[in-house]
Amino acid sequence: MPKIKRIYLDHAATTPVDPVVFAKIRPYFSEKFGNPMSVHSFGQEAMAAVDQARVQVAYFLRCQPKEIVFTSGATESNNLAIRGTLKAYQAKKENQGVIPHIITTQFEHHCVLNTCQELEKEGQIEVTYLSVYADGLVRLADVKRALKSNTILVSVMYVNNEIGTVQPIVEIGQLLREAHSVERIARNSKRSTFRDTRSKILFHTDATQAVNYFDCDVNKLDVDLLSLSGHKIYGPKGVGALFIRDKSAITHVQSGGDQEAGMRAGTHNVPGIVGMAEAIRQIKSSKSKVKNNEILKLRNYLIKKVLKEIPKSHLNGSLDQRSPNNANFRFDDVEGEGLILSLDMEGVAASTGSACSSGSLDPSHVLLALGLKHEQAHGSLRLTLGKSTTKQEIEYAVKILKKIVSRLRKISGDVLKEFK
Amino acid sequence: MPKIKRIYLDHAATTPVDPVVFAKIRPYFSEKFGNPMSVHSFGQEAMAAVDQARVQVAYFLRCQPKEIVFTSGATESNNLAIRGTLKAYQAKKENQGVIPHIITTQFEHHCVLNTCQELEKEGQIEVTYLSVYADGLVRLADVKRALKSNTILVSVMYVNNEIGTVQPIVEIGQLLREAHSVERIARNSKRSTFRDTRSKILFHTDATQAVNYFDCDVNKLDVDLLSLSGHKIYGPKGVGALFIRDKSAITHVQSGGDQEAGMRAGTHNVPGIVGMAEAIRQIKSSKSKVKNNEILKLRNYLIKKVLKEIPKSHLNGSLDQRSPNNANFRFDDVEGEGLILSLDMEGVAASTGSACSSGSLDPSHVLLALGLKHEQAHGSLRLTLGKSTTKQEIEYAVKILKKIVSRLRKISGDVLKEFK
Repeated sequence: MPKIKRIYLDHAATTPVDPVVFAKIRPYFSEKFGNPMSVHSFGQEAMAAVDQARVQVAYFLRCQPKEIVFTSGATESNNLAIRGTLKAYQAKKENQGVIPHIITTQFEHHCVLNTCQELEKEGQIEVTYLSVYADGLVRLADVKRALKSNTILVSVMYVNNEIGTVQPIVEIGQLLREAHSVERIARNSKRSTFRDTRSKILFHTDATQAVNYFDCDVNKLDVDLLSLSGHKIYGPKGVGALFIRDKSAITHVQSGGDQEAGMRAGTHNVPGIVGMAEAIRQIKSSKSKVKNNEILKLRNYLIKKVLKEIPKSHLNGSLDQRSPNNANFRFDDVEGEGLILSLDMEGVAASTGSACSSGSLDPSHVLLALGLKHEQAHGSLRLTLGKSTTKQEIEYAVKILKKIVSRLRKISGDVLKEFK
Repeated sequence: MPKIKRIYLDHAATTPVDPVVFAKIRPYFSEKFGNPMSVHSFGQEAMAAVDQARVQVAYFLRCQPKEIVFTSGATESNNLAIRGTLKAYQAKKENQGVIPHIITTQFEHHCVLNTCQELEKEGQIEVTYLSVYADGLVRLADVKRALKSNTILVSVMYVNNEIGTVQPIVEIGQLLREAHSVERIARNSKRSTFRDTRSKILFHTDATQAVNYFDCDVNKLDVDLLSLSGHKIYGPKGVGALFIRDKSAITHVQSGGDQEAGMRAGTHNVPGIVGMAEAIRQIKSSKSKVKNNEILKLRNYLIKKVLKEIPKSHLNGSLDQRSPNNANFRFDDVEGEGLILSLDMEGVAASTGSACSSGSLDPSHVLLALGLKHEQAHGSLRLTLGKSTTKQEIEYAVKILKKIVSRLRKISGDVLKEFK
């Protein structure tokens, strides 16, 4: 096998910009550089590009272009979805003094989880954090049980960023619609002179890790809010979007100019927006479908090989309900951080979990939510494949991984012996 | 004179990315594409670039690298400065029940003004909006008079985005420091057993339009918070920064991952950050100083020529205390919007004021703040020069402007006659 220099198996953290995408955004730096809000031709040229990008994103989500708000990334989108829903709720006179209720899961990305926890700590909301089971999935019955009369928002991620498990978004969407209908009928029948117009509980999904591989038709999913990011789909960093079905249900959180119909102030990141839209357009191509199938096969090969060749290795989360590019292992008696560093020295880029909290020494909150013990949650390895991943790379990565796990186990064994 | 195709005189709205800057950011899209928060080599390579950019920005502002927080633009920086100060204040137990006071000016950019107005409307703060005088400047005496015992923040822009006037930032900074010392001594002398540790009133300046031309040494300016943007300085769109002297005085407003020491969650826009830093580095070059001098000369030539050749034309705001690239005129009996559109048809890109509110039909809040009447504030023309502006372009622009003003006056004259 020829020497492989660097193998990137961390596509859930970020992806390289596709050369086709880069070619598309290039003119928007120094040539078509206008501010889309300017009325002159330079501005109109830039706005035309933003408008076209909006149509492309909307086409992918099967929504109206006006329902798309461009942001600086999924973190901002998720903050806007939650904080914006709360602000709109609080602004209504009839809601004054009411503490609304939000339902989310224990293993959301930190940008959802921390937002909920902070608002909860500030006394602005109450939150139910849904349990996640060993398969890495939430249960519909738990969502149903968590619903309260003051619930205003349910936020459940489409695909988990660490273990790649796919949540039952369609089913939750349906449940919320039915719950709303039933309740409205019940309430209306009690008071015949009063037609209940209470708003539906909003349903938000963070689809950041889903866009590459899963259907994001917002009507099929029955979501009111959906977040996505450019840099996870071979588009640029610094750009994201939020689908908002009903803008009257959301208040902006960043104030300023009139951009994005008042939903998000700040000069449009034109190359970013154009790039994210082009990346999304690429996902729909037949070439991309073939690629995704290859990724799935390679990923299955990787999982099989690791579980077979490395003793005491385990897959975290369901294999079936899982993003085709994600593998997340744990190895008994091996600490994840040391594993990652050793892999990196051998040219294999992997991660223990979310890059966003890699600075933290805490065990993965995702794996803890699955019911793993602290030492197990510390020993995880996430390998996420991408468009460029080859079988040769997988072969090499497993070979190296096997060697390292064995060496680390030997070291920890030796250390334990010394203490005896 | 040869035919000039398109002349861009709207550099206050946005600037093209400098080819040197573009060359610098190019590798960060598809090659050095790592997520800076990843621990492996791809991530470290990206983080090294972010770190170096932070050093470059800090060098320009004469502060510590750790005092720089990267954002998605000046709008986010300004929101963070104001909302973050308020959040940190509200989080302290001793401040519960106290409505803090913020001082700003009537002619701030909308991202400061709207933020203050919205927080005021929500009952979270009280605000003093300082008057601006006909010269486009605030007065130190007004700042002093506005100070109250519950004042926590003063936010005054360095250079106004519409009329380019330069505010007395150094003097305001000094005033606030002195006011703080005097008050502390007075309070401490009264209660000898109690050492007053009340925080200094924070001083924020939006330096977005100043960075190209003015000294942004945060110690000379005596500011605690300073906002800047990439795309106004020949860097990319979608990136900005906030200087924060004391991070304990600010609470983040966007929650999520551990980026930016917890001050701003969300994956770093690596090419954007690298590009903004390179753009800032270019400003310090001697070539840039020569360029700025040329811009000043051209701008003065433009103002002189317009005021001389076009009857009933006026310059809005002080000529002396003004950014070297800004000219803002009004022409009696001429409506600004028509002027801009006519100029655009002749290939000259100009604006009536801020691009961020170009969708609005309201007269410029900046010009109203200067004491102009509604019809005067509707008739403004902002011409902002840049590095590429030539004398030939200025000659052509004035020629066209003269023709258009005359034509528009004739039309409005004819219309008036018909009504007689």
